[in-house]
Amino acid sequence: MKKSKGIVYISDTHTFLPVEKACIPVTDTGFQRGVGIFEVLITYKAKPMGLDEHLSRLQKSVKAIGFKPFYASNHIKQKVLEGIKRFGEPRMMIRIVITGGDSNNFMFKTDPRLVILFMPLKEYPSFYFDKGIKLLTSKLSRILPEIKSLNYLSGSMAYHAALNHRCHEGLYVDKNNNILEGTTFNFGIIKDKTVVVPEKNVLDGITIRFVIHLAKKLGLKVERRPIALVELQYVDEAFLTSSNREIMPIVKVDKTQIGDGKPGAYTMKLLEMYRDQAEAL
Amino acid sequence: MKKSKGIVYISDTHTFLPVEKACIPVTDTGFQRGVGIFEVLITYKAKPMGLDEHLSRLQKSVKAIGFKPFYASNHIKQKVLEGIKRFGEPRMMIRIVITGGDSNNFMFKTDPRLVILFMPLKEYPSFYFDKGIKLLTSKLSRILPEIKSLNYLSGSMAYHAALNHRCHEGLYVDKNNNILEGTTFNFGIIKDKTVVVPEKNVLDGITIRFVIHLAKKLGLKVERRPIALVELQYVDEAFLTSSNREIMPIVKVDKTQIGDGKPGAYTMKLLEMYRDQAEAL
Repeated sequence: MKKSKGIVYISDTHTFLPVEKACIPVTDTGFQRGVGIFEVLITYKAKPMGLDEHLSRLQKSVKAIGFKPFYASNHIKQKVLEGIKRFGEPRMMIRIVITGGDSNNFMFKTDPRLVILFMPLKEYPSFYFDKGIKLLTSKLSRILPEIKSLNYLSGSMAYHAALNHRCHEGLYVDKNNNILEGTTFNFGIIKDKTVVVPEKNVLDGITIRFVIHLAKKLGLKVERRPIALVELQYVDEAFLTSSNREIMPIVKVDKTQIGDGKPGAYTMKLLEMYRDQAEAL
Repeated sequence: MKKSKGIVYISDTHTFLPVEKACIPVTDTGFQRGVGIFEVLITYKAKPMGLDEHLSRLQKSVKAIGFKPFYASNHIKQKVLEGIKRFGEPRMMIRIVITGGDSNNFMFKTDPRLVILFMPLKEYPSFYFDKGIKLLTSKLSRILPEIKSLNYLSGSMAYHAALNHRCHEGLYVDKNNNILEGTTFNFGIIKDKTVVVPEKNVLDGITIRFVIHLAKKLGLKVERRPIALVELQYVDEAFLTSSNREIMPIVKVDKTQIGDGKPGAYTMKLLEMYRDQAEAL
């Protein structure tokens, strides 16, 4: 039997459709103008990780854009839980999108549209964790980085530039050569038992919050401050975090090898702790 | 008989559909990540204004993003001309969109999708021209301003902020308080028979190119340089340009009245020349 590619909840009809049949009106402002926000989370044993945290951040984004009326978090939560049940996979990726709805001039906001995708989780190859990955820096950045909006063209460009340079992902660096965040992830370093993660002009990441919590449990100190690109040659470890990558070791940024060029011991310990916590949901 | 709301060409099926029935797969990278570019033009007496110029800029945007394969300009032109014939209105708005196509991770680019909308032109109220309009400045900006991409969330936010302040549109000002461009238009001033239009970090506007050409014909000098916000109190006229607004007089920016607070004489003369040229297509 062919496995399902996923299902999609669309608020227009209040129905769940197979992903191949789900479509968005061409007049949607999310499509035409990127007027929309989203959240991505994954499930462990068919349970969503950090659902309340993601719904809370979604409401912050919704408010920042000024969508009215809102979809209540409880309503979205119910649809997410229903979709998880319907799709029935233990490991799935859930993408919650809210757009400005339809508009003939593509600017006026009408009734927000809610779209929730449930798709099989595409796991990253295990060598990403075993060997660590390489990043390519980019002078691009996300617009309105505090809002998790649909405007990710720069992310796509930085990502494809990285692939073209035999790297796995793109890392945003500001004009003062301070590291911000990755195309779709938060970035951090570990040096002398201290975890450092940028805090300003980056997304308030939910996974990084969990990881910081675990790092403290592990006895590491935590600093939230900019990381200069030149610092990387002196750090012990570097990592990224995101919902579907958990915490992933980084072994190279541009031409700079991180530590001894192997995944860091604390990073891997944090990954283990993160997965233990997720599996125990 | 109810008037048509428009028709849409979609490359997936090579068909023209009524706009109400046209939709985009939920997995389209344009929708999920804003990976897409577009052009807007209008028709005069069922003839498209600046079609070749718009197609040429479209190809520049396509190249900047790195879409492959391209849609040849001739192919797009043929579809535009076919759509104009099918829709049959003398005055219409044409919106050409190319996205990265479908992607399960919303990042990998596959085959670009071409979508062309043909809709009735929604004319701006005549008092916009007779009385002039008011702008509200915004510290937001467009990302990758040289690319006419689908990432217009900041534009939507600046536009709605303007409406909330009883202004008609938003105007981007950089951190040094230099004026860049508007949410969906180029901006210019006229002082002592000299037209000044910013050139860097703004879209290479097609209408502004026409207007500059006409200004020179009219014996005005032209400068392409940044305009400091404080200059506005000393200018004679201010205007915006865009395909569907042609050249429109501006009478106020924030609390600063422009000139004598009425549409400028050169601006109105340029509008007349622009329309004459368009009608003679």
